[in-house]
Amino acid sequence: MPSIHPVILCGGSGTRLWPMSRKARPKPFLPLLGEETLFEEAVGRLAGDARFAPPLVVAGAAHADLITAALGAAPGARLVIEPAAKNTAPAIALAAALCAPDDVLLVCPSDHHIADADAFRAAALAAAALAREGWLVAFGITPDRAETGYGYLRRGAPLAGGYAIREFVEKPDAARAAAYLASGEYSWNGGIFAFGAGQLLAELSAHRPAMAAQVAEAVAGGRWDGARFHPAAAPFGAIAGESIDYAVMENTARAAMVPVEMGWSDIGNWAALAEALAHEADAAGNITRGAAADLLDCRGVLALSDGPRISAVGLEEVCIIVSGGEVLVTTRAGAQAVGKLPGAQHQ
Amino acid sequence: MPSIHPVILCGGSGTRLWPMSRKARPKPFLPLLGEETLFEEAVGRLAGDARFAPPLVVAGAAHADLITAALGAAPGARLVIEPAAKNTAPAIALAAALCAPDDVLLVCPSDHHIADADAFRAAALAAAALAREGWLVAFGITPDRAETGYGYLRRGAPLAGGYAIREFVEKPDAARAAAYLASGEYSWNGGIFAFGAGQLLAELSAHRPAMAAQVAEAVAGGRWDGARFHPAAAPFGAIAGESIDYAVMENTARAAMVPVEMGWSDIGNWAALAEALAHEADAAGNITRGAAADLLDCRGVLALSDGPRISAVGLEEVCIIVSGGEVLVTTRAGAQAVGKLPGAQHQ
Repeated sequence: MPSIHPVILCGGSGTRLWPMSRKARPKPFLPLLGEETLFEEAVGRLAGDARFAPPLVVAGAAHADLITAALGAAPGARLVIEPAAKNTAPAIALAAALCAPDDVLLVCPSDHHIADADAFRAAALAAAALAREGWLVAFGITPDRAETGYGYLRRGAPLAGGYAIREFVEKPDAARAAAYLASGEYSWNGGIFAFGAGQLLAELSAHRPAMAAQVAEAVAGGRWDGARFHPAAAPFGAIAGESIDYAVMENTARAAMVPVEMGWSDIGNWAALAEALAHEADAAGNITRGAAADLLDCRGVLALSDGPRISAVGLEEVCIIVSGGEVLVTTRAGAQAVGKLPGAQHQ
Repeated sequence: MPSIHPVILCGGSGTRLWPMSRKARPKPFLPLLGEETLFEEAVGRLAGDARFAPPLVVAGAAHADLITAALGAAPGARLVIEPAAKNTAPAIALAAALCAPDDVLLVCPSDHHIADADAFRAAALAAAALAREGWLVAFGITPDRAETGYGYLRRGAPLAGGYAIREFVEKPDAARAAAYLASGEYSWNGGIFAFGAGQLLAELSAHRPAMAAQVAEAVAGGRWDGARFHPAAAPFGAIAGESIDYAVMENTARAAMVPVEMGWSDIGNWAALAEALAHEADAAGNITRGAAADLLDCRGVLALSDGPRISAVGLEEVCIIVSGGEVLVTTRAGAQAVGKLPGAQHQ
């Protein structure tokens, strides 16, 4: 009897991958790394393995049809339509409320890339085993650089297949990130979790009783329409949105982590995509996808176009994205700020 | 009686200003600096001044209609249609053969920018005075930087309003260009000349007798069609094309120059255009023309678009040109190489 239930969250907006990521087709639904979209990758890396149940996808109504099309004939997949975007804690609680208390939820973002699916599945099994012992388990991605864009998890006492979490750390500055990397004690918080469904709801009731009550009410008042579940809009809409990290993980006494190296990237911006595509780069480190690109005296350029030819001379470490009639040119170092552009803000 | 005849040459291809400059509408016919095209600037800076005759324009058939439209009602303007592109010496010789021997030709490229038209006209009068004394006169642009992209003229003995030319120097390397600038003896050869028409033809006969004969034959066998002159195609097509510098100026014993400072630029590439538009730059040195551009953390960026929005982050000294469905991104330092791009080569 499969008892690990993949919960795939489709809530992100992906403004930093504008102009390719748009409201109508955001980041999870783009084939950024190959033929498959990131959402298809997220579903596919657990499909066909009897240890995992069919996925429970949580998403907004705007993307329901994209998701149903992408799920195709996946038998048993279910879709929970959030009446409003309320961050990860309410989304995960909805999924938990639709499962049996003893089920283990494997919570996965739908917009990350994982190169090594075997390592992911092995970590998922280790995390599920800890979850069955009552731990709330985060995947701890082994860092390979002093990244300042992620939260970190600090290891505590060893457990079977993982560690208790000693500390949650917000995005550090560069000096602290370097110290974390050197210490070997810290992992990135990749937003991937394993929870017992009943345990998660109990912890939510303890630390965020209002939210837990509102989610329970939204589920009690909701309705199934085939494989789609519609929570009641009023109680769900009244929730104060919060991440699962803030609402539960940082408050529970039972936080654990499993360390994992799996070629993970959140593809958080164009520079991250360039890194994830490094294996496709030519001798000068240039990566071209989509329409033709002519790069002269360029190094480390990522050139993506949905039609118009891109021509470039003399650039280093620059991303050029032409999509849907918009032209974006950003340094890799500046890629984090793309979401602040008017084009990304006012789609 | 006006006796200075402006001869406006429209022969260049302007591939380094691709993708805006195209075969069908090359550089002279683009409003690169303002409302006027460079060709309109070239005509306009002499129009309405009785000391200058109406212009004689030399161009290929492909651009005849653009030129006629741009000339508009300019009274007395004439257009010589070259049956083939043969560089500047044959083009100038055609114009000389259509003037009286005592007329002075003022030869001007149609794709340069001159900020100070008064200084240009003053230099033209000084050059014409020397031409009437039998000198072949080049404008010597006073250099303001150690440019390696131009030929240089070295001053010899002083003349009234100018100097004999002691030496023609090919494009120098950076060290020699710096030495030329420091010496004060050198000027840029801007491709602007004053010649007595008969004198120029006599010098051509002396130094390039075959070319002189072929031009004479093309004129003798040519025909006027209103204000358009069509040289005979066969003899003109048989000419071995050559620049006026190689064919005449470097061989004559009567080469002179007039020094001039007139805010000159050949707008030779996108970096040169950015320089010429520096007065339009914002506090960060960014210049935007055409459609809207959103520049975040950028310095010294030139952004030109004929429609699609350009968004950029973190760039320094980069030119972004979106025109006719092509996207070009080049560093200013790389702008000289734009003409080598496949898009520029195979239009």
